[in-house]
Amino acid sequence: MPAEKVNLAEKLAKVAETWSPKLVGTLDDYEIKVVKIHGDFVWHSHADEDELFLVLEGSFRMDFHDGSVELSAGEFLVVPKGVEHKPHAAAACSVLLLERAGVVNTGDAAPSARTVTDLERI
Amino acid sequence: MPAEKVNLAEKLAKVAETWSPKLVGTLDDYEIKVVKIHGDFVWHSHADEDELFLVLEGSFRMDFHDGSVELSAGEFLVVPKGVEHKPHAAAACSVLLLERAGVVNTGDAAPSARTVTDLERI
Repeated sequence: MPAEKVNLAEKLAKVAETWSPKLVGTLDDYEIKVVKIHGDFVWHSHADEDELFLVLEGSFRMDFHDGSVELSAGEFLVVPKGVEHKPHAAAACSVLLLERAGVVNTGDAAPSARTVTDLERI
Repeated sequence: MPAEKVNLAEKLAKVAETWSPKLVGTLDDYEIKVVKIHGDFVWHSHADEDELFLVLEGSFRMDFHDGSVELSAGEFLVVPKGVEHKPHAAAACSVLLLERAGVVNTGDAAPSARTVTDLERI
């Protein structure tokens, strides 16, 4: 068989930590990831890559310097390349991410405990 | 505000016809589409592009020449470039598609009533 399906709930059940994206698939040179988020992330941007956030469970807020977007399950947002943003989740939230391979979660921000450079495949 | 969210249920509510993908967003040079499917599509492949199918509502079966994959809501499949495939939905099913801009739904198959070359943005 040339391809296997991915069940997103099954993948999410394997994710314990927050703010640690896990690879669940690839498309051309793009990566499909799932991540659990809760609380505040860091302000950052990705100079050359747009970034897709699709909410799978719960809700979160994407802060921009000129406003915020509230997102709930079944809604997505594409953050344009070069635009500073900061996710914030008041309660636990599960998100599907899709972006070009090699994008680091904290973008241009100084590396921190939140920075994930070794992407685990689950 | 640099980006607007997309509510997938609201977009799907605007789609009446089946097998007619509608553009709902872009990511770099990729297109995010929604499509309603019911019944049988045509065998085809896309020589240079992988194709993501994420089921939003219902279920469908992706046929390959050496087997099939059954997909339900919350599951996705990436059909690798160059691999012949044929979606089949026994009942109405809603799917999110993501693939490089310019990919035509019927791929290398002879153009037919199912072929959509003018992608409508909704």
